[in-house]
Amino acid sequence: MNLLVGWDRLNADDVELIRQRTGAQILQPESREQVADLVPEAQVIFGFINPSLLANAVNCQWLQIPYAGVERVVSVPWGNPKMVLTNGSGVFGPNIAEHVIGMLLAFNRGLHIARDYQHSRIWQWEEPYPFRELTGACVGILGFGDIGRHTARRLAAFDCRVIGFRTQPRGDEAHAAAVYPLAELDSHLPSLDYLVCALPHTPATVGFLNRERLQRLPRRAVVINVGRGSLIAEQDLVAVLKEGAIAGAGLDVLPHEPLPPESELWSLPNVIITPHNSGLTPFLKERALEIFFENWRSFVETGMPSRNLVARERGY
Amino acid sequence: MNLLVGWDRLNADDVELIRQRTGAQILQPESREQVADLVPEAQVIFGFINPSLLANAVNCQWLQIPYAGVERVVSVPWGNPKMVLTNGSGVFGPNIAEHVIGMLLAFNRGLHIARDYQHSRIWQWEEPYPFRELTGACVGILGFGDIGRHTARRLAAFDCRVIGFRTQPRGDEAHAAAVYPLAELDSHLPSLDYLVCALPHTPATVGFLNRERLQRLPRRAVVINVGRGSLIAEQDLVAVLKEGAIAGAGLDVLPHEPLPPESELWSLPNVIITPHNSGLTPFLKERALEIFFENWRSFVETGMPSRNLVARERGY
Repeated sequence: MNLLVGWDRLNADDVELIRQRTGAQILQPESREQVADLVPEAQVIFGFINPSLLANAVNCQWLQIPYAGVERVVSVPWGNPKMVLTNGSGVFGPNIAEHVIGMLLAFNRGLHIARDYQHSRIWQWEEPYPFRELTGACVGILGFGDIGRHTARRLAAFDCRVIGFRTQPRGDEAHAAAVYPLAELDSHLPSLDYLVCALPHTPATVGFLNRERLQRLPRRAVVINVGRGSLIAEQDLVAVLKEGAIAGAGLDVLPHEPLPPESELWSLPNVIITPHNSGLTPFLKERALEIFFENWRSFVETGMPSRNLVARERGY
Repeated sequence: MNLLVGWDRLNADDVELIRQRTGAQILQPESREQVADLVPEAQVIFGFINPSLLANAVNCQWLQIPYAGVERVVSVPWGNPKMVLTNGSGVFGPNIAEHVIGMLLAFNRGLHIARDYQHSRIWQWEEPYPFRELTGACVGILGFGDIGRHTARRLAAFDCRVIGFRTQPRGDEAHAAAVYPLAELDSHLPSLDYLVCALPHTPATVGFLNRERLQRLPRRAVVINVGRGSLIAEQDLVAVLKEGAIAGAGLDVLPHEPLPPESELWSLPNVIITPHNSGLTPFLKERALEIFFENWRSFVETGMPSRNLVARERGY
C-alpha cells in the first residue's frame, strides 16, 4: 500500500511512527515538485497537498485531511471520483471551545478594555466595562458538530441555557438543552444573548448570517465566529456593529484572510479579532494521528475508513 | 427596629423594598455627616459605613456588609463588642469565576497578544502565541470558599483536574477532585499548571505566596489572583515573572491599589491586569439583597442572622 504523507507538522519521528503503525510504503515528498511526481502512485494520502494535484491522484482510494475544513478539496476535480474523503473533525473541539468561551468571557468581563488601560497604566475600575454574566443567559450554537458539542458541554457549567442549530438534528446531541433544525433559527434569534457560529463553508452557508438575521438578535447579543468567515459578509457585520444592533463580535475567521489592514473591523470598539488560530493546540498532531490510525485500521479491514467521512456533495 | 441603610448602589425603589420586606424603621443618611449622627441609633446596619464610625455603633446588634472582604471592619473598635458581623460571600461567586476562567483562557489562547496585534492591524497567526489547553491540566485553587467552588464547578467541564486548598477542609466541598489543608500546599505546587488565588486578607495570608513558593511552581504555571493583593508581595511577583519561574500572572488584585503608574507589573509581557473589578456584575444588588433578606428573617426569628457569619478573630 502506497501512503503519501504530506503535512509540515510531522517530523521524522512522526513519519517513522506512521510507517510502523501502518506497515505501508511511505511516499514522503522532499519538495513541492516531488509531490506532483508521487501523487499518481498514492493509494492513500494523509495530509495537505495542493488541491489542483488531486486531478492526478488516479489511484487514490482515500484522502485523510488533518483539519476540519475541506472546501478547497471538495470543489476541485478528483483523479479517482470514487476516492473517499475524511477530515479531522474532533481534533479541534477542546481548544476551539476554549477559544470561544475565552472570547465570550472577555466580553463579559471587559478583558479587551482592561488590556488597553493596562498599556496606558490607567487603573480604570467601573466604567466603561459592560459587565455581563452567563448566569441565566441563552447561548445559541450555530453548527452543532464536534466544536459545538465541546463548547456546549463547557458552557453548561456556567448556568446558562445552550441551544444548538444544525441542518438536520440527529437526536443524539448531548450537552444542549435543545437542538433545532437550522431552518428554525430565525424564530429563536430574538432570544439569544450570545450566538456562537461553527458552521463549515458550503454554498448554503455563504452569507447565511446576513444583516437581516443579525438585526433580529437583541441589541445585547454577542456574536462569536470560529467556523468560516464566509458565513457573515463583512459589510453586514460592520453595519450591525456600527448601528448598535448587536453588542459585540468575536471573530477568529473573516471573509477575507488575512483581514486587510484597511478593514474597519480592526478598529471597531466592540470587536475582538484573532487571526484564525483557534484551531491551534499542543494536542493537534497527536489527535490528528489518532483519527488517522483509527481510520487506517478500518480501511485495512473493510476497505473504508470509519470516522469523519465527508459527503462531497454536502461539503462537510 | 432601627435599620441603618448605607450603600450607594441602592436607589429609592430598593430602599422602599427593604422597608416593605423588613418592616423596620429605616435610617437613611442623606450625607456623610448624617451617617455619624445616625450610627448610635442603629440596631442593624446594612451596607458600608466608615469603619471608624463603628466605635459609636453602641446599639448595633448586627452588621451586614454587601461584599465579601471585611478586613477594614474587623480591625477597628466596635461600640458593641458583641455585634454580629455577616458578609456578602456568595454574591460574587459566578462573576468572579467567569473573571478567573476568562483570564485563564486569555492566557491559553493568547487573547491579550491578539488584542495588541489587532490595534496594529497585523494578522499574526502562529507565533508568538503560547497555545495551551486545560485538557489534562491540574488547577489548584487557593482558598476554597464560595468563589473557589464556583470556579471549580465551571473548570471541571474543561476536562482538567481541580484541587482546592483551604485552612481547614470541611469534607463537604463539591466540584474539586480533592481539597487539602493549606499546610499541604507546598508539596503540591510543583504539579500545578494553574494556581487560582481566592484567599481573604488576614494576618496569615499577607505575603503567604512568597517568592520561594512561587518558585516551586513549574515554569509553565499561570497564577491568577482575585482574592486580596496582599497575598503576593509585588517584588516577589516581579522577580518570578522576570526570571521566568512562572509563565504568567492574571491579577485583579494588587498589593497597592490603584496600582501606581510606575509599577513594573503594568508592562511585563505575561501579565494581565484588571482593576479589582472581578466582583462587578449586574446581579450584585439582587444577590446582596437576597442574602440580607434571608439573614433578616433569621435575625427576627432567632436573634441571629443565619448566613455568612464572620468570625472576627479569624477575619473571614
